[in-house]
Amino acid sequence: MMIVMKPNATPEEIEHVVARISSVGARAHISRGEEVTLIGAIGDREHVARLELDGAPGVAQVVPILKPYKLSSSQLRGGEPSVFEIAGRRIGGEHFALIAGPCTVESRPQLLETARAVRDGGAAMLRGGAYKPRTSPYAFQGLGQAGLRLLAEAKEEFGMPIVTELMDVRDLDAVLEVADVVQIGARNMQNYTLLAELGRSGVPVLLKRGLSATLEELLMAAEYILKEGNEQVLLCERGIRTFETAYRFTLDLMAVPVLKQLSHLPVVVDPSHAAGRRDLVGPLSYAAAAAGADGIIVEVHPNPEEAICDGPQALRADEFAEYAANVERAAAIAGKVFTHA
Amino acid sequence: MMIVMKPNATPEEIEHVVARISSVGARAHISRGEEVTLIGAIGDREHVARLELDGAPGVAQVVPILKPYKLSSSQLRGGEPSVFEIAGRRIGGEHFALIAGPCTVESRPQLLETARAVRDGGAAMLRGGAYKPRTSPYAFQGLGQAGLRLLAEAKEEFGMPIVTELMDVRDLDAVLEVADVVQIGARNMQNYTLLAELGRSGVPVLLKRGLSATLEELLMAAEYILKEGNEQVLLCERGIRTFETAYRFTLDLMAVPVLKQLSHLPVVVDPSHAAGRRDLVGPLSYAAAAAGADGIIVEVHPNPEEAICDGPQALRADEFAEYAANVERAAAIAGKVFTHA
Amino acid sequence: MMIVMKPNATPEEIEHVVARISSVGARAHISRGEEVTLIGAIGDREHVARLELDGAPGVAQVVPILKPYKLSSSQLRGGEPSVFEIAGRRIGGEHFALIAGPCTVESRPQLLETARAVRDGGAAMLRGGAYKPRTSPYAFQGLGQAGLRLLAEAKEEFGMPIVTELMDVRDLDAVLEVADVVQIGARNMQNYTLLAELGRSGVPVLLKRGLSATLEELLMAAEYILKEGNEQVLLCERGIRTFETAYRFTLDLMAVPVLKQLSHLPVVVDPSHAAGRRDLVGPLSYAAAAAGADGIIVEVHPNPEEAICDGPQALRADEFAEYAANVERAAAIAGKVFTHA
Amino acid sequence: MMIVMKPNATPEEIEHVVARISSVGARAHISRGEEVTLIGAIGDREHVARLELDGAPGVAQVVPILKPYKLSSSQLRGGEPSVFEIAGRRIGGEHFALIAGPCTVESRPQLLETARAVRDGGAAMLRGGAYKPRTSPYAFQGLGQAGLRLLAEAKEEFGMPIVTELMDVRDLDAVLEVADVVQIGARNMQNYTLLAELGRSGVPVLLKRGLSATLEELLMAAEYILKEGNEQVLLCERGIRTFETAYRFTLDLMAVPVLKQLSHLPVVVDPSHAAGRRDLVGPLSYAAAAAGADGIIVEVHPNPEEAICDGPQALRADEFAEYAANVERAAAIAGKVFTHA
Repeated sequence: MMIVMKPNATPEEIEHVVARISSVGARAHISRGEEVTLIGAIGDREHVARLELDGAPGVAQVVPILKPYKLSSSQLRGGEPSVFEIAGRRIGGEHFALIAGPCTVESRPQLLETARAVRDGGAAMLRGGAYKPRTSPYAFQGLGQAGLRLLAEAKEEFGMPIVTELMDVRDLDAVLEVADVVQIGARNMQNYTLLAELGRSGVPVLLKRGLSATLEELLMAAEYILKEGNEQVLLCERGIRTFETAYRFTLDLMAVPVLKQLSHLPVVVDPSHAAGRRDLVGPLSYAAAAAGADGIIVEVHPNPEEAICDGPQALRADEFAEYAANVERAAAIAGKVFTHA
Repeated sequence: MMIVMKPNATPEEIEHVVARISSVGARAHISRGEEVTLIGAIGDREHVARLELDGAPGVAQVVPILKPYKLSSSQLRGGEPSVFEIAGRRIGGEHFALIAGPCTVESRPQLLETARAVRDGGAAMLRGGAYKPRTSPYAFQGLGQAGLRLLAEAKEEFGMPIVTELMDVRDLDAVLEVADVVQIGARNMQNYTLLAELGRSGVPVLLKRGLSATLEELLMAAEYILKEGNEQVLLCERGIRTFETAYRFTLDLMAVPVLKQLSHLPVVVDPSHAAGRRDLVGPLSYAAAAAGADGIIVEVHPNPEEAICDGPQALRADEFAEYAANVERAAAIAGKVFTHA
Repeated sequence: MMIVMKPNATPEEIEHVVARISSVGARAHISRGEEVTLIGAIGDREHVARLELDGAPGVAQVVPILKPYKLSSSQLRGGEPSVFEIAGRRIGGEHFALIAGPCTVESRPQLLETARAVRDGGAAMLRGGAYKPRTSPYAFQGLGQAGLRLLAEAKEEFGMPIVTELMDVRDLDAVLEVADVVQIGARNMQNYTLLAELGRSGVPVLLKRGLSATLEELLMAAEYILKEGNEQVLLCERGIRTFETAYRFTLDLMAVPVLKQLSHLPVVVDPSHAAGRRDLVGPLSYAAAAAGADGIIVEVHPNPEEAICDGPQALRADEFAEYAANVERAAAIAGKVFTHA
Repeated sequence: MMIVMKPNATPEEIEHVVARISSVGARAHISRGEEVTLIGAIGDREHVARLELDGAPGVAQVVPILKPYKLSSSQLRGGEPSVFEIAGRRIGGEHFALIAGPCTVESRPQLLETARAVRDGGAAMLRGGAYKPRTSPYAFQGLGQAGLRLLAEAKEEFGMPIVTELMDVRDLDAVLEVADVVQIGARNMQNYTLLAELGRSGVPVLLKRGLSATLEELLMAAEYILKEGNEQVLLCERGIRTFETAYRFTLDLMAVPVLKQLSHLPVVVDPSHAAGRRDLVGPLSYAAAAAGADGIIVEVHPNPEEAICDGPQALRADEFAEYAANVERAAAIAGKVFTHA
């Protein structure tokens, strides 16, 4: 961390900054220029994170030099990407995994029909929500435990790993009985108590980027999970909030190559929620794969017109295989090989 | 809700929309124009909320005509603002309440010294955090239960109502023992299970707007609390995320008059977190009061240079009385009377 | 346009709205519901555009039903995309054009060496700036007329159409002597007098989206050009401003399929300015092509380390051919054929 | 400027950066740490502005230490604010000026009636647009030269300085015949050729912040005017673009105290365009004045329902005096004295 002092900072103010740096166990390195004095704070991230010098007397600017995350940093593994094997399916490095299924588990036929279509079409994992975060308290909130039981049945029947969302820490044990990957939604990205519990559970986590979270904040949220000893975190870009009103969210595909540079963790893209419209899901998926994503999580429904939730953004189950073939072609441009179920 | 059909929508597509409207218990009203057909969905918000017609076949656009919230709507009380009395202090309507105290409870002397200064300076309630949501898992996370005990001591000694934050639903009972108002931070604004529990608890809630939450989403989050029978929700603007990098967040003071128009709930402004710098807290507070806010929640510290957390944004305890006097003058322009401790 | 009246709107207020609609040459269609009255304004876009009813007495909301643009609308051509032939190179429909060259024309060897590399590598047109809009008045502002002369020389030598930027309407004649396509930069997207002059000139225009322009505003800016009788406008996405600080701008690739739905005009993507970093240009270009863009405009330099302007984002000339081959593969996924020089 | 090298930067890469710094006439100061090497570039802003080292080989990050503007910087005048006297009216320092009038000049009676009301109500200057930048080419574009003649008449009759907008550099001479202050709209904030011409003209300029311009970009745009020798620039906050859809723009009142810290130039706020609704103009104006603005520019119309343009946001002429009295009270909280006509 570099502290830029104001041009008129007094010796006492400089001394105070140096003392603060020492007090957290870091070392200060002073560099006096003609106009300003710079003070470097050298030490472990955990120590430097305790410095709060923004706006301290005489301080003009605090410039982070090292990244505040370390377990999620690409430096941890010397630039090598992590490859995770989840119930036999690989994701990360050169392995690309397609995760597909309904937004919400609605009924046995709906789930099983979708599961069959996405497995046959080339998906590596099955997604489906039992607990649904909804903006309106009056909207359908998911089937809850009944939904988890249906997911367990689909897992048994089709042998696909299950990705499902957790919202309430009190539901953790029930979710762990069926989930191979636990999804944390965008609105819970900074629900730190939930992240820490998942860290302790050891289950692979798909962590969605918050609606206005910077990439650094996403990596810091991952750090909450990793810090508890859980190494398997999948980062997920799902659209951010911008001024544009022509779509629900703005899918930020620059996040894909940049996250892969900053971190060793695999990067997954969710085109369905960003778009909110089926006709955009294809182009955005091909773009995400061509940009180098390690996976895509996409919504599929056997009969989107009758879906309880987010039907308009679901791909039709009978068109899934063609879609998956195009994603595979696009992933190949980025040097990726498809992980099949 | 108004559904605008595409110019080339078929009779079957129109029929399908009408059927969906009927299926949720609402009524359809068709209006055929020269270029497009419009279909109105008439019924209760709870019914209409279950319609998901965006992107349905033949649908060009779905236009909400009525607001999706009802318990937080200004219409609920015929345009009259709600006035809450919290441990004898009024907020809302013509009553303005200043809530002040340290960001984090650090120690007995720090808390008690601050409490004395803000009570003497004119604050109506004492704020202080025992559980702190921090972006970094390596940063100080709050004193927890020890912090709650210090707050109880300050409450006893100075007779001030306590405002403190809750992050984990499992800490609810402990927090309720001391809190007169439970604060929900911006990152938890859409932590729906937490909101519903607070709704059932009946304790007044200070609900902070998420970093990129629209006013409608803030009101929908309040609706989760109100729906459980808890009527006392204070809405809090604390800065939003924009492209501007000259400050931490952009304080959105337009939210003050607009929220007061949309809702009967009191509106509080937090200038400290938006600014992140002490020298901006005064101007922003006077602006918030002049714009018609019902209260301000502000950070104060006896010795900001030594604060563990967010010291640079804390007002100095010995300058608080002068600050409060200016806020009182600004509030008077908006026709507000100060609530004193 | 649909006008939603307030629940308590008076008959006089309704009458007033109807009169305003008539006064601009449109017709009013009233639909009285249980809670609110809706008034449709039916007529030509040019008439309806003169209505300014937002906030008029009794008006709750004004909902545009038809798009405010017409010459740029996809409806103008019945959903058929426009294909332009510019100095023999096709762009639009199934034709994909790669436009490449230096950010700024710096010298004869720099320009000619780049031109040769991009022509040999498969670019359809040569880009190069003689007039440069710079945030700082102290930064290099371009070679001006000397730069235009060098572009004319490159055009002559390599037979490539030239794309170059115009900032000042007084330079129009000089620019028209060499430009096959005139570029309007993001900061000038709403410089309406410049747009209208280009409309009258008849030269093809590459119109960059403003840093915070909605897609609708981009199409309305195009409308200023089209309205003067110039049919050849290329829309260009080049990154928008968001809260994210990890990159210079956030490239909005959702704009590609959505613009192509809303408009018949070809859509070009500029990955260089959004990224500001060479290593992101490849992934973003492949993504843009896979998403269905009609072209890419990219910066190339024979020796980026020595570039006067934006060197860090320029592709190296000797790596251009490999890059172009990958773009061609990605464009094929979207069904596009490369236009070669 | 501080250049942070990558941990694995080679001696050659460091040497290259040092050579680049020397080549623009600045000096390099190397500081080798344990993990990274820092290189300071010391020299004049004009020299350092020519360095383009972002993304150069081995460079991790470029950190500006000094601000890129100098003539607009508060340092230029040692922290003293500029006070301008425009046709006898003072603005800046302790002087607050209210600028009022119609959005667009529509007719002689409309303009003269408004001028009388705002002069009698306490406005220091009269605003009125003859050239109007409109999103739609089909909307009313202003009266042009006829509008300028009416402004000249109002100036003669009421003795008020005139503020009016310039869009096209070719209209400069005509506008200078009547304008005491030339307004540059948000969409032209980075129309650099227009800014430079106004710099040469010497006329006071009211420069509106672009819809997504950072404060630094606004000051750099001012620098284009100041650099040509024109010292009189008024900075104007008029709302920025954010994700919020409840209002047209988000008025950024934090810009007021921050701009006044960064720059010696006066800061004016335009609440009318941000709000787009009359009922918000009062609260936002009182807030702006309480936050320390040096002036407000506000739209007033004798009969807003009949206004050709932006009627819904115009204050009623007969309510102006009461509004102005409240603004005066709010400005007093910030220590400002009203400049009367």
